[in-house]
Amino acid sequence: MGQLLRVQNFGVSEDGIGAGEDQTLQQPFGHVDPMRLMRWATETAGWPGRTDGGGSRGLDDYFTRDFSHGIGAEIMGRNKFGPQRGPWEDHTWQGWWGDEPPFHTPVFVLTHHPRPSFTLSDTTFHFVDGSPAEVLARAREAAQGKDVRLGGGVRTVRQFLDADLVDTLHVTVAPVKFGSGLRLWDAPEELLDRFHLEKVPSPSGVVHHLFWRR
Amino acid sequence: MGQLLRVQNFGVSEDGIGAGEDQTLQQPFGHVDPMRLMRWATETAGWPGRTDGGGSRGLDDYFTRDFSHGIGAEIMGRNKFGPQRGPWEDHTWQGWWGDEPPFHTPVFVLTHHPRPSFTLSDTTFHFVDGSPAEVLARAREAAQGKDVRLGGGVRTVRQFLDADLVDTLHVTVAPVKFGSGLRLWDAPEELLDRFHLEKVPSPSGVVHHLFWRR
Repeated sequence: MGQLLRVQNFGVSEDGIGAGEDQTLQQPFGHVDPMRLMRWATETAGWPGRTDGGGSRGLDDYFTRDFSHGIGAEIMGRNKFGPQRGPWEDHTWQGWWGDEPPFHTPVFVLTHHPRPSFTLSDTTFHFVDGSPAEVLARAREAAQGKDVRLGGGVRTVRQFLDADLVDTLHVTVAPVKFGSGLRLWDAPEELLDRFHLEKVPSPSGVVHHLFWRR
Repeated sequence: MGQLLRVQNFGVSEDGIGAGEDQTLQQPFGHVDPMRLMRWATETAGWPGRTDGGGSRGLDDYFTRDFSHGIGAEIMGRNKFGPQRGPWEDHTWQGWWGDEPPFHTPVFVLTHHPRPSFTLSDTTFHFVDGSPAEVLARAREAAQGKDVRLGGGVRTVRQFLDADLVDTLHVTVAPVKFGSGLRLWDAPEELLDRFHLEKVPSPSGVVHHLFWRR
């Protein structure tokens, strides 16, 4: 099947909301507390931020440790990279992740505003304008035969779904409702015209939704 | 947690049987048809033998594609390597897997009978005598910081469990009973004194049993 475009470990609420619209520097997910969507992941042994040697090694851990497996590049929306809008005021902002970003591959940040590439540890950020298909072509080339991760946020996943470029999605649905915010879907069944779907409940309380192309 | 010793994709029946006792060259699993235990795996996209680009990408696929992820060596019992018993009559037998074994790492075959190492593609087979702890130490060194897979068969997994050397187990229980054969357990709950256990039913009919140390 060649190089896939994969959404992985993407968390939404029962009402399909993955982030608030009111993103700030202090609140990358706006009024949505990301721990309510992602606590399942932080409690696993495979969570990239874990350094204590502990954590669970059950079902959820298979998903967190698959995060980088076979991935050669990431595509992310500008709002995942930072809270700024419009032309770049300065270049001191280098993302939310400090000196050791968890990507370890080239990352393509979608933006209409050009900016020079830069490298932090083994992650290089490129800033690219273009259609989803054009950006995916660049990311595939950079991935050197491996798959490409579509990292989000919500609008970016929707954009690539609408362009029918996504091959697999792993979305966790947490037992919480937010009422308002950036919505991935009204219901996961919306994607059944194009995707198989398996729903796998986890002891942690989330339901893993696994989609792959029909 | 350092280098783990992991059992992966190990299939047993509802009555805990992973193979027959009557192994022959023609029937590596004796009277047990391995497809009744492992069909779930062969239908996934990640199954090592798959070359057609198809296959499912749901829950079961997370397990098959995890098979080699982070693994630097395998330990297997002599009966997994071949049907011979006693001293090696000749060295023409090189395992069941042809010129491209699916291991891609050093493999340590437990045997009381010495035999020279040999290499097929990127898999090198070593033939080792020693206690489970001694063999594990050699495999860990060869794995160069990665985990070690405990590949089976049933007796070998039991031997390492009894020596309390296993860190994680992924065992699939298929909806079939064999009545007789080589038994991994009477019931998975036998291991609960030492391991956490999550049971995850798959749409394919098997129940994934995920164990990790308490």
